[in-house]
Amino acid sequence: MPGSLKVPKGLDGVAVTESRIAKSDSDGSLIYRGYDIRELADKAGFEETAYLVLNGTLPNRAELDSFSSRLRKASRVDDRVFGVLRSLPSDSHPMDVLRTALSVVASIDERASTSEMEISIAAKMPVLAANSIRLPRGLQPVNSENDLGLAAGLLAMITARSPAELELWTFERVMILYMEHDLNASSFTVRVVASTAADPYAAVTAGLAALKGPLHGGANEVAMQMLLDLKDPAKVHDYVQAAIKEKRKIIGFGHRVYKEYDPRARMCKEYLRQLVKSTGKGEGLYQLCDALEREMWEQKKIPPNLDFYAAPIFYLLGVPIPLYTPIFASSRVFGWLAHYNEQMEERKLIRPDAEYVGPKGLSYVPIGDR
Amino acid sequence: MPGSLKVPKGLDGVAVTESRIAKSDSDGSLIYRGYDIRELADKAGFEETAYLVLNGTLPNRAELDSFSSRLRKASRVDDRVFGVLRSLPSDSHPMDVLRTALSVVASIDERASTSEMEISIAAKMPVLAANSIRLPRGLQPVNSENDLGLAAGLLAMITARSPAELELWTFERVMILYMEHDLNASSFTVRVVASTAADPYAAVTAGLAALKGPLHGGANEVAMQMLLDLKDPAKVHDYVQAAIKEKRKIIGFGHRVYKEYDPRARMCKEYLRQLVKSTGKGEGLYQLCDALEREMWEQKKIPPNLDFYAAPIFYLLGVPIPLYTPIFASSRVFGWLAHYNEQMEERKLIRPDAEYVGPKGLSYVPIGDR
Repeated sequence: MPGSLKVPKGLDGVAVTESRIAKSDSDGSLIYRGYDIRELADKAGFEETAYLVLNGTLPNRAELDSFSSRLRKASRVDDRVFGVLRSLPSDSHPMDVLRTALSVVASIDERASTSEMEISIAAKMPVLAANSIRLPRGLQPVNSENDLGLAAGLLAMITARSPAELELWTFERVMILYMEHDLNASSFTVRVVASTAADPYAAVTAGLAALKGPLHGGANEVAMQMLLDLKDPAKVHDYVQAAIKEKRKIIGFGHRVYKEYDPRARMCKEYLRQLVKSTGKGEGLYQLCDALEREMWEQKKIPPNLDFYAAPIFYLLGVPIPLYTPIFASSRVFGWLAHYNEQMEERKLIRPDAEYVGPKGLSYVPIGDR
Repeated sequence: MPGSLKVPKGLDGVAVTESRIAKSDSDGSLIYRGYDIRELADKAGFEETAYLVLNGTLPNRAELDSFSSRLRKASRVDDRVFGVLRSLPSDSHPMDVLRTALSVVASIDERASTSEMEISIAAKMPVLAANSIRLPRGLQPVNSENDLGLAAGLLAMITARSPAELELWTFERVMILYMEHDLNASSFTVRVVASTAADPYAAVTAGLAALKGPLHGGANEVAMQMLLDLKDPAKVHDYVQAAIKEKRKIIGFGHRVYKEYDPRARMCKEYLRQLVKSTGKGEGLYQLCDALEREMWEQKKIPPNLDFYAAPIFYLLGVPIPLYTPIFASSRVFGWLAHYNEQMEERKLIRPDAEYVGPKGLSYVPIGDR
């Protein structure tokens, strides 16, 4: 189109809207609603941070209690949803299962208000995540029936045990770090869908579709598999050399925004170190991560991202690898909903142009003459 | 972020990528792969156009036969999918049902190649669309068991009768006009999801989520409802005046790209005129549309879009209004898949920036002190 503004592919470095939700910066900072992520992850609770991300301010005690109570009440999943998950093939990909499950909930909840839908989506996501590998395999559903809160409750459902205090604390920290990250691909997907005035179920279902991609949410699972394959820190040098030679990306390293370091990865590394020290397990895994980080920085000047250090924490906590991305979704859903609401206020359809570089002026020839 | 490039909201007039698929232009032209839409809609068949959009060239006879045969074979829907749809509430929104259905197919097809997945998605979409209002209501599933082809087969499934030659021809024309439209919101959604390297099921499921929005695919249903409410051409003047006064958009008019006229709307108007003339039904509806078009141009200089003239055609063909958007999806899916493939070749994550305009430098205060 004449007059189209051409911008870098992938919208790299292109500010497509204004936002008050979060800001990641190339200098290695990240804020949620004005608060430094380092302070929130160290001091705040999961629901407290979720309230902040969704509503824009930290809650007082009454607000937090009311919010937590709404989430608890909305967490019950209709038996019809569990029935659908039971009918899926036993080897279904958990992100497909989670997406299907949420899409089914949409049909059941259709008449709810937007705010009710949002609470319902966020409250049910951990329950659907925990059941995403259980029901297709014919196991009984698990429900979050305790008062642990969303993050700790999710870990309890997944591991089917009562995790120790430090385990719960660590898991909740990682969940807080995963909650929001401005216009990542899944949040941007949510905003594009919201711009058509579709409901939050449609938008979050689309967000789940984007999060499945190995270049986005699937990265933590790929990173863990790599660590398990590598095993030995002594192999790290050759591994990185081979990747450079084959021009192969090493998943878990590099980020569109952070060039020096990802603040979330730094925090997770410290949480991992504390967890290993306290439990006495995983020292080898920590050393392997550290060696790979050093090698990547030395050879490529590429820092690890959140997925790289979240993965070994999930592993040591006993989380099955296929649940890493569903866990990510159970936290990021609050960011998605915040973006949904912000986009709905903007009331502007997202409809870009493309520069057409294909053929023009072709004439139709009847099929017999081709 | 310092150095971010700020662009218009909604990415209005922003060329985010290069494309060889289609080009809509503000001068009222639209080409698919270099061919004028007017020529294709008048002369080409649905599968022929679908092949063109997906593969970039018009097929010869052998290619078209092979393509049609692959689509026919892949159209069978697994009973587990129908089982899921039967378990949904009877008043489920058809677009939610369609999205859920496709998401379930994903779990069943997971091990297929990308090309097999794409054929499967496109082949099953009309069957899922036709069943989206049947199965939740407890009706028996319908299957496309004849050799009518995708478009005509869909009309036969929906109406449960053998439509007349002109009806089939007209429906197929409208389906061709709906097939592709460069970076509309749902196709852009598909591309954002594809950019994470997620599979075509994830991407098309997200496309369906975007198409549900009343500002996008839902528009043809809203337009038809408006025509039914209006009934009388004599009411048109006051209706438009009231909308202007209340600053209310009239759905079915205006388009981000076309300012003078939407070529698809012009063609549909002519198809509608021929249909009315030939069947002797719908003269009043045609007059109403024509009156509203004239009034909108006179008062607002806004032309009708495709949805405005597709809706009365669907209505006269006996298509239930809730199926208008699922029909749109059954055609647009070929455009989505073409965009999926093009984005996968680009291999670049779509990850924009936002201009952060929220608070900064806030300090965490313990909850007791708030």
